[in-house]
Amino acid sequence: MSLSVELLATGDELLTGQVVDTNSPWLMDRLWDAGVMVGRKTLVGDDREVLEAALRETTGRADLVIMSGGLGPTEDDLTAECVARVMGLPLEPHAPSLAAIAERFQRMGRTMTPNNAKQARFPRGATIHPNRWGTAPGFTVQLGRAALTCLPGVPAEYRGLAEEVVLPWVAARLGSAPAARVLKLLGLGESAADQAMRPVMDDPAHRGVRFGYRAHFPEVHLKWTVTGPGAEPRAAAIEAAVRALFGDAVWGSGKEELAALLVARLAARREKVALAESCTGGLLASLVTAVPGASAVLDLGVVAYANEMKTRVLGVEEALLGASGAVSEPVARALAEGARSIAGATWGLGITGIAGPDGGTPEKPVGTVHLALAGPGGTEAVARLYRGDRERVRRAAAFEALDLLRRALLR
Amino acid sequence: MSLSVELLATGDELLTGQVVDTNSPWLMDRLWDAGVMVGRKTLVGDDREVLEAALRETTGRADLVIMSGGLGPTEDDLTAECVARVMGLPLEPHAPSLAAIAERFQRMGRTMTPNNAKQARFPRGATIHPNRWGTAPGFTVQLGRAALTCLPGVPAEYRGLAEEVVLPWVAARLGSAPAARVLKLLGLGESAADQAMRPVMDDPAHRGVRFGYRAHFPEVHLKWTVTGPGAEPRAAAIEAAVRALFGDAVWGSGKEELAALLVARLAARREKVALAESCTGGLLASLVTAVPGASAVLDLGVVAYANEMKTRVLGVEEALLGASGAVSEPVARALAEGARSIAGATWGLGITGIAGPDGGTPEKPVGTVHLALAGPGGTEAVARLYRGDRERVRRAAAFEALDLLRRALLR
Repeated sequence: MSLSVELLATGDELLTGQVVDTNSPWLMDRLWDAGVMVGRKTLVGDDREVLEAALRETTGRADLVIMSGGLGPTEDDLTAECVARVMGLPLEPHAPSLAAIAERFQRMGRTMTPNNAKQARFPRGATIHPNRWGTAPGFTVQLGRAALTCLPGVPAEYRGLAEEVVLPWVAARLGSAPAARVLKLLGLGESAADQAMRPVMDDPAHRGVRFGYRAHFPEVHLKWTVTGPGAEPRAAAIEAAVRALFGDAVWGSGKEELAALLVARLAARREKVALAESCTGGLLASLVTAVPGASAVLDLGVVAYANEMKTRVLGVEEALLGASGAVSEPVARALAEGARSIAGATWGLGITGIAGPDGGTPEKPVGTVHLALAGPGGTEAVARLYRGDRERVRRAAAFEALDLLRRALLR
Repeated sequence: MSLSVELLATGDELLTGQVVDTNSPWLMDRLWDAGVMVGRKTLVGDDREVLEAALRETTGRADLVIMSGGLGPTEDDLTAECVARVMGLPLEPHAPSLAAIAERFQRMGRTMTPNNAKQARFPRGATIHPNRWGTAPGFTVQLGRAALTCLPGVPAEYRGLAEEVVLPWVAARLGSAPAARVLKLLGLGESAADQAMRPVMDDPAHRGVRFGYRAHFPEVHLKWTVTGPGAEPRAAAIEAAVRALFGDAVWGSGKEELAALLVARLAARREKVALAESCTGGLLASLVTAVPGASAVLDLGVVAYANEMKTRVLGVEEALLGASGAVSEPVARALAEGARSIAGATWGLGITGIAGPDGGTPEKPVGTVHLALAGPGGTEAVARLYRGDRERVRRAAAFEALDLLRRALLR
């Protein structure tokens, strides 16, 4: 069966650009995985009249309306009040919620204000959703033709309650659980991926499957959701077809993160990597060290922006820099080998290039990058010409370096 | 005068979480600066019926509706067609737009497809907005009670045309140009800033001024917009009051970026900075090298995660590490001095700490960070205990290091 779903968010701060609503895209993505495309999303301010009109409109159209925001303790938190008024029912205190809020304040050693009691008042007959991540419980009522679920706007609370309440409700209503898959690719762009996927997407055997992609530059994530009978085996068959299509450009799946994957693989092998960066300027090191536990696999990263530092800290020979120039394959190799040797690591990664906007020449335009990986079996190097601005060139190069290491660890 | 404005965006990709609508928060922010708070934002899919209903609703309520998306060449780009149908007028070809599109394709060496001709058809009587950033022109029509401006969804094109068409239109309608100001702070949180701002915000002299803040962790940006007569001097008076309130916690204003400001100041002084990072793991180097031209002021950054590397690469004495531990003021000082000395730089920044989630002890819990700045007048150090997860601790520490240098450059 199909289900029409709308999202409604309230909060002046969302209409001034002060706070960006990241909850809705997150839930849309999760609902897509569950087999549902949201029909409409509406953002309104903290205004009784506008909010009540939006509640009437959305609950008059959809089977399920998920509303966020307006459950706080202050005067401009209007959600419960407006929902009750549109329903023509009073607000009533909910003793278990009041007790939970009081206990929360006590546990945090803070004084509960009378305002907080407001957060335990709900439209008569509402189903209450206890909030394990914060103060304000959510609630669900039947209004118009819709089930209306109201959640707090704080992202951790919104997401926690959506996982706990909304997604199971949707799955139950749809009857059968859909099968969703994500494969993550590096080394080709969105349009190339889209082009390559055409035969799979147009295959009559995959009729009714929702395909999509997410661009996380420079990664591309391919997604598909299969609903109905045999969803799991059908999703698995598509995964096999996609993996055959893209080979080792597929580096992972699901919620895997490339840097975290590499840290885990290196740790399992009891190996370490050392980094020597020029144009990426610490971005590669920052990606690796953002992973909890990275200290088990990384002892040293050097940002050797100046030629003199490449020589002094990493032992790159001056003659090499003079003969080939800093942006060259030999220097990339020397950087990788220098970092590996100084740190006594199993692997060394070196990157040198021109991130722009200045510094390009006709022979070495902006976007020219040489990368090298030094390892137990010797040193390999690749040359690239990336398109885009400084940020894109740096990101593309840093991820390409991670990918070089990933491929080496597969061998 | 006041102006009611609504935003309407179309695109299936916006409702699946595939693409996040960053255009709307951007324009909301710009409109806020212009003295207007958007009343409502609606997101709908590529569906004729839904789109036409949304066009009727929004143009029936607002003075100005800014719509984005659906101006592409493909079948599911429905905007011009739906607007024309709701107006009860035909689509008509616009010869100058067709010529501009053809010329654009020729310039890029690509073949124009018949589909692209669709992008030069508009509802009869529409005002056309040539697009200097892409293929699809925008257009404005009068519909219902509103001026309806349709813009392409591609961010660069949307923003370019909004700057060129929408914001001047709004300014003209409002009659007087408002004065908007942004001051950027480091070293205090949102709620502390909000608390401190109360006397300014509640001052009767500032009645009618719109105050707001933007959190860019760990920065806080304070904003205000003054409309009506004497807007400029009133905004300037508030700026003086806010600067007096926060002193040198205010590091900049307007569109200034902290790292870019430091790169510019160092370059003007012909000075350089060298970096030695432990817990921030390259994040500080990455922030600095993200600035175009950073190579003029940074020769070297070292990520010395392991104690051995602190000793081998940066000359931190083993005895010091043994006596004080790696996360200590003496080691932060030695890191800063080591980086400064090896690179021969004017300034050296050192950071050592515990970013978490593991590695904390009762004496040195997660979030403990020591920072040091070595310079011509000696070395200064600060100790901090940041709250939050690994990412927040790293970000807070990296920005604190930038701020240490900023304050030194002020002296």
